[in-house]
Amino acid sequence: MNYRLIFKLIGNVLKIEALLMLFPLLVSFIYGSGDHSAFLWSIIILASVGIVLAKLNPKDKNFRTRDAFVVAGFSWILLSLFGALPFYFSGYFNSFIDCAFESISGFTTTGSSILTNVEALPKGILFWRSFSHWIGGMGVLVFMIAVMPSINASTVNLLRAESTGPSPDKIVPKIRETARIMYLIYLALTVLLIVILKITGLPTFDSLVNAFSVAGTGGFSNLNVSFGGYNNIAAEITITIFMFLFGINFSLYYILLGRKFLRFITDIELKTYFGIVMASILTISINISGIYGGIWEALRHSSFQVLSIISTTGFATTDYNIWPTLSQSILVILMFTGCCAGSTGGGIKLIRFILLFKAVKIEIGKIFHPGSVKTVSVNGKKVSNDIVSKTALFFFIYFAMFFVSLLLISVDGKDIFSSATAVIASLSNIGPGLGLVGPTGNYAIFSSFSKVVLSICMIAGRLEFFPLLVLFTPSAWKRGLIK
Amino acid sequence: MNYRLIFKLIGNVLKIEALLMLFPLLVSFIYGSGDHSAFLWSIIILASVGIVLAKLNPKDKNFRTRDAFVVAGFSWILLSLFGALPFYFSGYFNSFIDCAFESISGFTTTGSSILTNVEALPKGILFWRSFSHWIGGMGVLVFMIAVMPSINASTVNLLRAESTGPSPDKIVPKIRETARIMYLIYLALTVLLIVILKITGLPTFDSLVNAFSVAGTGGFSNLNVSFGGYNNIAAEITITIFMFLFGINFSLYYILLGRKFLRFITDIELKTYFGIVMASILTISINISGIYGGIWEALRHSSFQVLSIISTTGFATTDYNIWPTLSQSILVILMFTGCCAGSTGGGIKLIRFILLFKAVKIEIGKIFHPGSVKTVSVNGKKVSNDIVSKTALFFFIYFAMFFVSLLLISVDGKDIFSSATAVIASLSNIGPGLGLVGPTGNYAIFSSFSKVVLSICMIAGRLEFFPLLVLFTPSAWKRGLIK
Repeated sequence: MNYRLIFKLIGNVLKIEALLMLFPLLVSFIYGSGDHSAFLWSIIILASVGIVLAKLNPKDKNFRTRDAFVVAGFSWILLSLFGALPFYFSGYFNSFIDCAFESISGFTTTGSSILTNVEALPKGILFWRSFSHWIGGMGVLVFMIAVMPSINASTVNLLRAESTGPSPDKIVPKIRETARIMYLIYLALTVLLIVILKITGLPTFDSLVNAFSVAGTGGFSNLNVSFGGYNNIAAEITITIFMFLFGINFSLYYILLGRKFLRFITDIELKTYFGIVMASILTISINISGIYGGIWEALRHSSFQVLSIISTTGFATTDYNIWPTLSQSILVILMFTGCCAGSTGGGIKLIRFILLFKAVKIEIGKIFHPGSVKTVSVNGKKVSNDIVSKTALFFFIYFAMFFVSLLLISVDGKDIFSSATAVIASLSNIGPGLGLVGPTGNYAIFSSFSKVVLSICMIAGRLEFFPLLVLFTPSAWKRGLIK
Repeated sequence: MNYRLIFKLIGNVLKIEALLMLFPLLVSFIYGSGDHSAFLWSIIILASVGIVLAKLNPKDKNFRTRDAFVVAGFSWILLSLFGALPFYFSGYFNSFIDCAFESISGFTTTGSSILTNVEALPKGILFWRSFSHWIGGMGVLVFMIAVMPSINASTVNLLRAESTGPSPDKIVPKIRETARIMYLIYLALTVLLIVILKITGLPTFDSLVNAFSVAGTGGFSNLNVSFGGYNNIAAEITITIFMFLFGINFSLYYILLGRKFLRFITDIELKTYFGIVMASILTISINISGIYGGIWEALRHSSFQVLSIISTTGFATTDYNIWPTLSQSILVILMFTGCCAGSTGGGIKLIRFILLFKAVKIEIGKIFHPGSVKTVSVNGKKVSNDIVSKTALFFFIYFAMFFVSLLLISVDGKDIFSSATAVIASLSNIGPGLGLVGPTGNYAIFSSFSKVVLSICMIAGRLEFFPLLVLFTPSAWKRGLIK
């Protein structure tokens, strides 16, 4: 294990976080919200630790796959823990565990909160919560690769460890270029959303925090009743559309910029995403029309809610706990599936389902034609057996982690349905679940132990397990010390 | 597709079913329960259809893998539908769908019932319900292979299509011998159980039906309140132990008969099974001791219930709907896992979890040592990558089927937790779930449509998906007609 290089990179991540914290500090000064000292202290601590670590001078220039995974795992844990400092210093939270939960929920773009009254928070803190979604959405390591030319470690592994989906696309041959293009598209879409929200009549501050929450598919709101509180139809429609857009694989936007429209609209994951969204909205609209006294109001709530869940944002305009079982089942299934790989959204990702459905079809084909050597292909490209079996294992790990976590938080004695959806909502980085953790509920009901379990789920889900699994492999450390 | 041979084999299955139906007929005569004509008519129909089909003379002697899968899928569907005839003729059921549900639940060893008052049924019908568990437990095709020397089709594929687990062990080189040994062990254990139950004081009839239900890990009871109704501690302990025994891979008994004790006790699936059972019993006992006023009574109920669920029998001595969330979570997880491959039990099977855990470990190892070519091995034997990826796909199919079925039965509008556990309990062939379908509940609450969905789940789960998937592959039929 190349410790020096690992810690040097983590130091850079912390330096970046210190710089990014200047934004909420600025917000705090502008609005005079009185929480500037919480950010000042946090920035001083972050910058000191970051600068010291970044000064490390690795003798060994080798940067192996395992090192990249360790950097990813560690960066995200430290990013979240240091990101919790402003919360802690602000004095609005009960314990450091609560601060860490909120911060992890922010960076992992989960958006579940232990706060019962967010409206009481000062503007700087509210900004930082949503801004952490934005940072976490595209990834802080991707950001580092994009902005720091000095990183000459094998960056493709870093990108791989942080990006979502079975095989991250390099959209241009150079990794740094890819990272930059991704971030530019991300930035452009976010700015567009801010402008439109402002036009629909939201205050500037609200436009900013809601745009960050949607762009990262996070879901922190600055209102106690989530986005429904604005009761602004134009803003709601805007958010609905953008939740869909941020759930799309970003490399498809690059393809679109290159005017390859046909490739864009024939992308199998995009078509699946669109189809599932449409089918879900229609079914739920019909199913809930009785509750909302008409199909239009039903359509409004169902489209917002379906996109909020499948994009793993987690905003709410209504309490879907009162919806019929069929609608709830659809939402629960969407919680597992999530949206597209390479988006800012979470969940298992649709491409994994597509891959495995194709693999099952081929397996059945083998019963008809033993000895057949057909392989899975997606969008006309062959997918290696290695990626298919890794995808199937991902599925297994997801459910294994789901069951173990359910067991652990069941100790709290909350009802099993609420507990189960709390775990899914954390693993898939959604935020609200159903039952006690539904849109009107809150994660404050859980014990500190359960909050730690759910925090681990959030990071594991965001990094898609392997970086954390590597971190928790004992032999990683034994061998590392020898080398 | 070799239709003639396929239908000839199915004809033989139906002939065997006609013969096996002589037992309940006999019971009906002995007890004078008045339901003999229901069996007489069923036997006449079965025998006629069976004899006609079995007379088919296939020109093509080739029996391919796909043919075996079609035979397995079709046999089980027809076995269940014809097995529903006595229920239908008896007049105690509301519709043929109810009869079919009960029969499928019987043969697949699920044990979920749509009857609200089983004690009102005549003895012949009660006997047939439990006897169908016994027939389905080890498998009717295995039985056919064991008793019909005239079947000279490639029997290993038939065995493979009906047996459970990733790779059925041939315990001796000859398939027919293997099938015979399996059935003899099965018979011997069943007879032993009948005798012990009789000694504990159960009436002869009750000893028989309960032994059949336990041997097949089915769960149909002849009492409305399930096995708890006897309030006979000795019988309860007996059943508890035998539920454990019938959850073990039967080839291990053969190993034991060969006095290879070391191989027996070091079997990794058996050790895992034992460990999970012990850990679950202990945790639940502590968790529920408050409800039952002491650790002993808690231990009694938890050990019975843990083994009833993990072996997928589904008997109950208490209503675990009142247990705390932790205990319920454990039971739900055991519903998914099930017991050992090659047993009469259902569920995903522990060996699949063991295989995939090992595969994940190897995948992590690859991050440390890229290019490593380590493979999974179980009990000292290497497992091919093909079996590992098929196992991972099995996992995917299980959950895909779970979600689709949940969606379909959600239309009924029963609460989502009850609906979800009803689907698991059907897929894993357990019987009772939690909530509305808990030990005191009943499947009569579902619509006919949901009963059909759950029936398909039961057969799909029992045959571990592939035979049914082959049956529902359209190209199977197109190509078949040409050939």
